[in-house]
Amino acid sequence: MGGGVHGGVDLERLSLNQATVEQWSLREAVEGCARHGIGWIGPWRHKVAELGLAASARLIRDAGLRVSSLCRGGWFPAATPAERRSRIEDNLRAVEEAAELGTDVLVLVCGPAPDRDLPGARAMVAEGVAATMERAAACSVRLAIEPLHPMFAGDRSVIVTLAEALDLAERFPASRCGVVVDVYHVWWDPAVEAQVARAGDRILGYHVSDWIVPPPDVLLGRGMMGDGVIDLRRLRGVVEAAGYEGPIEVEIFNQALRDAPGDEVLALLTRRFLSVV
Amino acid sequence: MGGGVHGGVDLERLSLNQATVEQWSLREAVEGCARHGIGWIGPWRHKVAELGLAASARLIRDAGLRVSSLCRGGWFPAATPAERRSRIEDNLRAVEEAAELGTDVLVLVCGPAPDRDLPGARAMVAEGVAATMERAAACSVRLAIEPLHPMFAGDRSVIVTLAEALDLAERFPASRCGVVVDVYHVWWDPAVEAQVARAGDRILGYHVSDWIVPPPDVLLGRGMMGDGVIDLRRLRGVVEAAGYEGPIEVEIFNQALRDAPGDEVLALLTRRFLSVV
Repeated sequence: MGGGVHGGVDLERLSLNQATVEQWSLREAVEGCARHGIGWIGPWRHKVAELGLAASARLIRDAGLRVSSLCRGGWFPAATPAERRSRIEDNLRAVEEAAELGTDVLVLVCGPAPDRDLPGARAMVAEGVAATMERAAACSVRLAIEPLHPMFAGDRSVIVTLAEALDLAERFPASRCGVVVDVYHVWWDPAVEAQVARAGDRILGYHVSDWIVPPPDVLLGRGMMGDGVIDLRRLRGVVEAAGYEGPIEVEIFNQALRDAPGDEVLALLTRRFLSVV
Repeated sequence: MGGGVHGGVDLERLSLNQATVEQWSLREAVEGCARHGIGWIGPWRHKVAELGLAASARLIRDAGLRVSSLCRGGWFPAATPAERRSRIEDNLRAVEEAAELGTDVLVLVCGPAPDRDLPGARAMVAEGVAATMERAAACSVRLAIEPLHPMFAGDRSVIVTLAEALDLAERFPASRCGVVVDVYHVWWDPAVEAQVARAGDRILGYHVSDWIVPPPDVLLGRGMMGDGVIDLRRLRGVVEAAGYEGPIEVEIFNQALRDAPGDEVLALLTRRFLSVV
């Protein structure tokens, strides 16, 4: 464990979620982590596909990086049974990719409704998770349901609160199914402390960024830690009090960061990780 | 009751929230309602202030319009006790303005935190509501706490769920304090049906618009009813099953509607009110 304790959090826990540096290929991200002393990475499937699964796994392994999670499975609701089956098959592939990459956490972004029927779409999500569970168990991969901010209820996920994600996860053994706590998605929730405490050992990931006021964009307006109003120290305390001691992914969807040189982004996020997370 | 039943809802229940036609003065909005057969209006205080309170009240009364609510009080949290006192005094004035305008409903948009302390700001909201209650009772005005969509937690309201609004409202008698159910703010909530049922006779207003996918803007991206993904018929059914039979305010913060001729907006919203609400 080479990282020192700075401002309360150990650099050793920092993981680079690749969406933060979308301008980089997986190879560039892996090399960037090496230059900046980052020991974990959270790759996205489209970046893995560019390089190929086997080559990606080898690249990461040879660099000595650990994989905190794979983004993402999910996106279960669809208008027809055939399309829903196709989504589930994609999730089965995602489970295998996660295992091949050396992580036991597959993040699920559950998807929007195909129509105006939210309860119906939520039932499709539950069916999809259930249908993916056996393959996940066979691959020793845990399914990590990520509640998204309610402003994504129309286009990205009908699962929008930690309570709802846990209601679903608790239908399965804790060893197989849990949740991701992303501060951007849950910081507003008056029940966040109670629900994180309830989550306990079902917390399979902790993601940080910040909420800029006012938000510059719906999808690409997340802020660098310290640039917004989220009480990051308090939330990390709550998550750690619940027992989570794993990697902390920095996942910032922000257009300005994607337009900047990746090394500048990594230098800044490493500093901010130590000073405000 | 001159309105007929069309598509399930009576035109008689339509109220024009003035924020929908921000391009109009209060006088223009009142005259527009007359031209379009709209019997209710929900004025905003800055528009009332332009014309003057007494003149506004007379204008509305002489036109035979009823006032469904006044927007808005609230905005309680502030960094200093002096500033919080000043916010409460503004709410006392808002209560009196509501009474003078002939409505017994003052909508509260509770305001953001002055810092990163959400629980602290929520306590300030509770103090502010309590401090406004006596004047509200004296004026026979009910305080209607409006939970805002969680994407406004950073800049407009720390009260972001119906459950939270009701937890606060229930500290006071139902005759004095309730909630506004605005579909745009609550449609995503997996608990919306249960919380609306819980609200019962504390529902002091029902607001409609729609959620466009993807949202074109954070503040001014609300959609005309029928242009988005909210299941308006289902939500009206839930609200009516809870006992609410009052006016339905059309409140759409949308830049394109504000750039359009007001009469076109009123013609469209009246048609959509009948066909999809």
